[in-house]
Parts: sequence; C-alpha cells; structure tokens
Amino acid sequence: MTEFGLIDFAARLFADVDRHGWEAIGDDCTVLDIGGGEVVALTTDMLVEGVHFLRDAASPQELGHKALAVNLSDVAAMGLRPVATLLSVALPKGMEDKWARGFIEGYSDLSHREGVALVGGDTTSSEVSIAINVVAIGRGPASHVKRRSAACAGDEVFVAGELGASALGLADILAGRTDTGYAAIHRNPEAQTAEGAWLGGRSEVHAMMDLSDGLASDLMHILRASSCGAEIDVETIPAVGGDVRAAVCGGEDYKLLLTAAGERAETLQRDFGVEFGRELYRVGRIVAAEPRIRWIEHGMEIHPDWHGFVHF
Amino acid sequence: MTEFGLIDFAARLFADVDRHGWEAIGDDCTVLDIGGGEVVALTTDMLVEGVHFLRDAASPQELGHKALAVNLSDVAAMGLRPVATLLSVALPKGMEDKWARGFIEGYSDLSHREGVALVGGDTTSSEVSIAINVVAIGRGPASHVKRRSAACAGDEVFVAGELGASALGLADILAGRTDTGYAAIHRNPEAQTAEGAWLGGRSEVHAMMDLSDGLASDLMHILRASSCGAEIDVETIPAVGGDVRAAVCGGEDYKLLLTAAGERAETLQRDFGVEFGRELYRVGRIVAAEPRIRWIEHGMEIHPDWHGFVHF
Repeated sequence: MTEFGLIDFAARLFADVDRHGWEAIGDDCTVLDIGGGEVVALTTDMLVEGVHFLRDAASPQELGHKALAVNLSDVAAMGLRPVATLLSVALPKGMEDKWARGFIEGYSDLSHREGVALVGGDTTSSEVSIAINVVAIGRGPASHVKRRSAACAGDEVFVAGELGASALGLADILAGRTDTGYAAIHRNPEAQTAEGAWLGGRSEVHAMMDLSDGLASDLMHILRASSCGAEIDVETIPAVGGDVRAAVCGGEDYKLLLTAAGERAETLQRDFGVEFGRELYRVGRIVAAEPRIRWIEHGMEIHPDWHGFVHF
Repeated sequence: MTEFGLIDFAARLFADVDRHGWEAIGDDCTVLDIGGGEVVALTTDMLVEGVHFLRDAASPQELGHKALAVNLSDVAAMGLRPVATLLSVALPKGMEDKWARGFIEGYSDLSHREGVALVGGDTTSSEVSIAINVVAIGRGPASHVKRRSAACAGDEVFVAGELGASALGLADILAGRTDTGYAAIHRNPEAQTAEGAWLGGRSEVHAMMDLSDGLASDLMHILRASSCGAEIDVETIPAVGGDVRAAVCGGEDYKLLLTAAGERAETLQRDFGVEFGRELYRVGRIVAAEPRIRWIEHGMEIHPDWHGFVHF
C-alpha cells in the first residue's frame, strides 16, 4: 500500500465520525475554529533514520533544526504563525547522550529564533533506528487561513523564493561533496514563517502550500483541490544555478507556492519586496481547465518529463 | 541519558521561550485556554516495535486499539473528553498491506466507539521496525481540568477500577500463555474516557492522572507536584486476583487515580456507582508531609519493596 493508499483507506473508515469542528484532511494543517475569529492549526511529520536521514550525513544539531523547520513550513503554508510544538523521540538503547543533546540543541535554537514553545512530547527507546515525530501548532485569525482549494482561474502563480538548491545539495551529498553551500542548504532548510504569516494577511492571496516535493508535484495538489489548470512560464522559474529540472522536480525547498488575484499581482509583488527585501516570483497563471500543468517556454508549450519527488 | 534526563534538558533549554498560553509540561496533557471558558488539551505517545510491542505478540487490530487507548487515557486523566487524534505511522519497506490495514481498523473501531475523529497524520517507511506516534486532542470546560498539583491534605485517594490485570497479562504472555483473559486485557486496554469526563465535572475531585506505571510510581507524581504525602491502606487496594504487588507495581492498567475532598468522598463514591454501576475505590488519604507514600496494613506501617515500572 502506498502512503496515499493508506491515507485513503483511513479516510474512508473515518468518513462517518463527527469531526468536532476540525476541518478535513487535505491541507498542510488541520484547522479548528476556536471562536472569537481565531483558529488553531496542527501538522505532524515523522522522520525515520535510514529513510529520511543518515546519522552520519548530518550533525544532530542540523537534524534537530530540520525536523522542526519542515513542520513550521506547513504552518506557514496555511498563512498562520507557528506558536508551539510537541516532540517525540525514540533513541536506540545504549546511544550516546551527545547525539540527543545535540538534536535538542538544534531544535531549541530554531525554536528560539522563531519564538516557538515546546509544550509536550515523549521520549522512549528503540532497538536500532532513531525515530522522530514533530507536531507543530499554529494560531491566528480565521480569515488568514489559506487553503489548497482556493485557487481561481485568473489567479497568478507565485513562488516566494528560489527553487532547486536543496535538490542540488542532495546530489552533492550523494556524490560525497558534503561541504558545498547547496549541501548545507539541504541539511538546514529554512521555513518561510514570516512570509507565510504576512501572506496570510493578504486577502488577494487565494491558495497556498509549501514546496516539499517540487513544483511539478505540489502545484498539482492545488490544481486538483481547486479543479483548475495552470500554465507555467518555464523561463520565469527562479531556478538556482539555472537548473530548471532541479527547481521543478527537486524536493525539500520549503518555499511557499501561492496563487493570487491577477489584478493585485503587481501590488502584492511590490509590497512583498518592501517587506522582505526579496522578490516574490511570478511563474504562471491559473486557467479554467482540467487539473494539469501546461509548461510554456517562450510562448510555446513543451512536454518535459517532469514529475515530483515520491516518498514511501 | 534517561527519559527524564532528556526531558529536563529540553525544559531548561526552553525555559525562556514565550509559551503563547500553553501550560507547562508536567501533566498528562498540555492545556491551552482558547477563551469562552474552554480549553484544548494535547498529549502524545510514541510506540516502537521491539520496545513497546512485538509484531507477533499482538494482532495489528489490537495494536491499533492500544496505541489509541493509551492516549485517550491521558486526555481522560485531565477531566476532558477526547475529540480528535493525529496518527503517524512508519512501516518497514516491503511490509504486507494486511498489517497496516489491520492496524488502522483497530484504531478506527475504538475511534468510532469513543466518537473521536482522525484529523491528521503522516505515513512513511522505515528500514526495519514499525514506529507509531499518536496525538490525542481533548476539549472541554476550563473549570473541569484536573492537575497533578491539586491534591490537598485531607483529600481521600481513589482509583476508578481494579488494578494489576495488565501486569498479570504481561506475565502470562512472557510465559507463553497468550490466550488468558489477563493477556487479552494487557493487549486491549480500555481508557476510562466516560469516567474521566464525568470526574472532570465534579468540583470535589482535586488531582487526577492515569495509572500507566503503577500506583507506587504514579501516585508519587501527584505527591511531588502537590507537595504532600499519602497513606495507602493496602488491604483496600482493589487488586485483581488478590495480587497486591501486581496492582501496585504493574504498569498499563490505565485506570484513573484521583484525590477528592474528604468530606465529599461518600457522595462522590455513591454518585459514581449510580452513574457507572461500578465502584470508585477509596484506597487512602493525602496528608501534610514530605512527598512519600506510607503503606498501611491493618493500621500498621509496612515497608515493602514496591516501585513502579521504569520505561526507557
């Protein structure tokens, strides 16, 4: 059973259970309206040694940072600010304290920088492999919540940073070049928390998510949820090192992908530039069509073999 | 580093981070006041194959049930009703679908029975071992929340069910007797969710927690948090099969342990009996003393070598 097969199976089994106000699975977070115009949002990720990381390929500090960053990114993708986390860690029996301390230090350093509290968790032993589970909790105005299903024909498509550095870094690491700048980016992803909360406050932003599996794969989630198509102008994709394939197919960039009302596109880009001193890249548009990406290069449709990163 | 060493280390590192309204670690759940007189409570547990369970010693359905039950018990221990969960599962590559389906079915069956929604999660692969992380979410009136720190001298101590069956079942399983009634209880613990929510509404109930590590160990958490002592009348402990050692030192009973104002003890017991058709057992009293348990047998202090279950 694939990851999605198992999720579908669970979704069918639970279809008849009262959700007590929690919104259905399908976005980066699950959202609960808590009244007073506010919501709480939750997301969770499990990382397993040998699958998501190798103990020797990253320092424990880097792994602590990354385990947290990928979850903060999911909260940012909803347009909310992360406020707290829960951390579960299973460590092999007899493992040195140094690793656990380093991991918690990396997790704590990023938590301090982002102002995110650690409010619960679990520690236990394992037989062989390290396993880590992080839950991130966001909170903010209900009106700020951005959903994958909110894209409309006429929207422009944006990405909030350059793409592909993490994939280039992974390639470096696999080739034994562990000390390159790209390798460091792969090991130390940054969540766009400030950008996410700011974009949450912009009503012209419609759909939003974070790029964890690559533009080619992740944009399809928005298109399917919103029942629309997209045209992407390949030459406008902000590809690190000019490597468009890495930018489109590579995973783990954790940059925000969003759609916004076309008539507000320039204002949004200008205000984003003023706020963050960096560009909000416009890469295409949403169209009334089947959920499919048309890749356009200098005005002509091309048919590249681009697809996203498949986990599991 | 022990489990508690790691938690202390993390607590020190995070001491200066704004908690955004989340109450500090130390109870079965972390609690957030969401306004309107209501709270949300969260708890999490990680279960690892080879440490918490053996793949062949329980069916996947039983494991799905148990993974959920232990978390629902933590919510019940706060005096709140569980409403939703998040489930993360890491499964070894190449594992048969049947196991995953069975696990989700067991989890779903108990969720249906308790009216608890599945509102998020993660599925991934692992190299060798199954790892499971469950987050349970409770919601209810802020005035119902019971804390470990609320015991007072003059309170009576109660347990909301018979103790020791799970430990006897574990002994049976380890001896190869996997089909006894106790073994079934060990594999299929029930959380006292109805009892927890009902006791939450009783203002005479002061401190509460669930018995996961045995009375000898868990009562000490209440005594330390409340800065008081306890006298336990050994002959009143509702020990399954008369095995007091199993009742006091055995883990995983998941019965509620609580203290309540002495002058309301009889009313509480009577009302509990009317509500649930079962006894709320009075086993001792809270006294103004150092955090220590005095074991009293027929009026005389005894000094048994009783201690709780130590994980990790």
